[in-house]
Amino acid sequence: MNLKQLSELLGLSQTTISRAINGYPEVNEETRQRVLKAAQETGYRPNRAAQRLATGKAGSIGLVLPTAPEHYSDVHFGEFQSGLAEEALRHDFHFVIMPSHPRDEEQAIRWLVASGSVDGYYLAYMRENDPRIAMAKSLAVPFIVHGRSHGLPLDYPYLDVDNEGAFRDAAELLLRLGHRRFALLNGPEDFDFALRRKLGAMAALREKGLELAPSHMRHTVMTDEFGYRGMAELLELPERPTAVLCASTVLALGAVRAINKAGLKLGEDISLIAHDDVLPLLKPENFTVPLTTTRSSLRAAGIRIAQRLIAAINRTQPQPPEHELWKTDLVIRASTGPAPQ
Amino acid sequence: MNLKQLSELLGLSQTTISRAINGYPEVNEETRQRVLKAAQETGYRPNRAAQRLATGKAGSIGLVLPTAPEHYSDVHFGEFQSGLAEEALRHDFHFVIMPSHPRDEEQAIRWLVASGSVDGYYLAYMRENDPRIAMAKSLAVPFIVHGRSHGLPLDYPYLDVDNEGAFRDAAELLLRLGHRRFALLNGPEDFDFALRRKLGAMAALREKGLELAPSHMRHTVMTDEFGYRGMAELLELPERPTAVLCASTVLALGAVRAINKAGLKLGEDISLIAHDDVLPLLKPENFTVPLTTTRSSLRAAGIRIAQRLIAAINRTQPQPPEHELWKTDLVIRASTGPAPQ
Repeated sequence: MNLKQLSELLGLSQTTISRAINGYPEVNEETRQRVLKAAQETGYRPNRAAQRLATGKAGSIGLVLPTAPEHYSDVHFGEFQSGLAEEALRHDFHFVIMPSHPRDEEQAIRWLVASGSVDGYYLAYMRENDPRIAMAKSLAVPFIVHGRSHGLPLDYPYLDVDNEGAFRDAAELLLRLGHRRFALLNGPEDFDFALRRKLGAMAALREKGLELAPSHMRHTVMTDEFGYRGMAELLELPERPTAVLCASTVLALGAVRAINKAGLKLGEDISLIAHDDVLPLLKPENFTVPLTTTRSSLRAAGIRIAQRLIAAINRTQPQPPEHELWKTDLVIRASTGPAPQ
Repeated sequence: MNLKQLSELLGLSQTTISRAINGYPEVNEETRQRVLKAAQETGYRPNRAAQRLATGKAGSIGLVLPTAPEHYSDVHFGEFQSGLAEEALRHDFHFVIMPSHPRDEEQAIRWLVASGSVDGYYLAYMRENDPRIAMAKSLAVPFIVHGRSHGLPLDYPYLDVDNEGAFRDAAELLLRLGHRRFALLNGPEDFDFALRRKLGAMAALREKGLELAPSHMRHTVMTDEFGYRGMAELLELPERPTAVLCASTVLALGAVRAINKAGLKLGEDISLIAHDDVLPLLKPENFTVPLTTTRSSLRAAGIRIAQRLIAAINRTQPQPPEHELWKTDLVIRASTGPAPQ
């Protein structure tokens, strides 16, 4: 249903219909109600281009989707997006998503902004010294960073989970349980969240004069298969770890299988703590040996990013960049126990 | 970088730059190359609204994302989208995604089309007698259905997996192995794919004079937890099944845990076949007892839907609706064995 068709249907001019929908006082209330009712029934919505001319807003949030033939779909991204969508729906916002090869993300953001089709956007999959932040600050459209970029001053708006604190807490728990031989199954090394989790674990160990050796770390995409492979390799080491920190419950799934296959008992022979993004797919409390986790909901982060972005879009005055750092919950279950003697 | 800034940077008029980029013969080749080089270096892209005026195309694919606070993020959706994105990137297409409560999807599609911001769109999460198909046929924008809608004539363009054939093949394999007591762990009952899988299994059983009793079926969202719960319930039945068909490897994950917990041996005491969408997250060959599966790549389906949709958008003459039904592979691994005596 377009404006012309609605005009014919109602026997009203296109101008009258536009004015009715936009609340102009020239149109009497009875006509306005009639137009709104017909618009709702027929699914007519004023042309977005026309709306945009009137409000200067597209009603949309932009994002770049890293894409390549060898690029895995990311369950964590989907969960974040579901929170973003929940909040966007409340404000009648939609998304404009630009697929981009990971090496072309800056270009993709420039294009999104230059197209005029987005009112604001967010940056994700942050890396150390990420050049996208300087670029985003130079563009005249609100943005928020999901995560942070290690190495850069914190002068941009962000929402991040305290990844460093999460893995420091996790390592400290294991140290109190008497563990001395640690390993790390982490996400891809170039991502900021993985770097910070590593730094957090290292800081806790350093306080006790311990180290996390490169031989005891794995940085991989976060799938079941890499969790299995990584853990299987760790269990072959001469200095076999008794405590493992794991960056995702999905990695933990494979890791636990490798532990079982080696005939070891989780929570007795070996302890494991995983980061839990609260994926509906896979709950740590339902593992055969329920997993001790550092927990922070990715969906809640998606909701909050959308709230802040939409508020920034609707604001008439700019405000200083807002910073949010979410502490994670350390949830102790059965996968952690005293270090074996 | 907008047109005005690029104009100042190059010392050329905005008109000259637009003409250069759009290949008008009035602009000499040297100037054109200079403009293209600068556009590339600065990330300038002609305003999409202006492009749209010129070509009549937005360069975008629309889709509706079912969204509600209680709505689970769907790993299968993410995998499909990754294929779609891979192909869209090749053609410089982007996505416009409208979040919508599942009950408002028709409205959301009308809005997408009326907004003029999409050149084509696809319908997913199909249901029996889905009213969106009649609506889509009435709108003047190309669309493709991912899946089909049981109960409606096949007069619309679609790409579907042969879900009926997949579960018929799976049930027949188990029948040949001597199984007589079957159960089904299926996706949500109102989805077409789940209905067809049920019908396929039932058809194979009926040929042998067997039935799939309602007590032996579960229709749930496809997460680990529901797989576990469903299987745990099935194992409590007086007529305990020896053969289980499972609509997803994610459901199978929980189902296998329930089997292990009950002290039963997968592939000996109980056989299981899962549908495998080829999710990178979770590979059936890596289960402790590798899973027998019916296999069809969701990512490949995403790529193909994008190819067909972009072809339809670029076509000047309409063509009759194209139908594709993909057979699944039956991959036999260790989770299936002879029925226990």
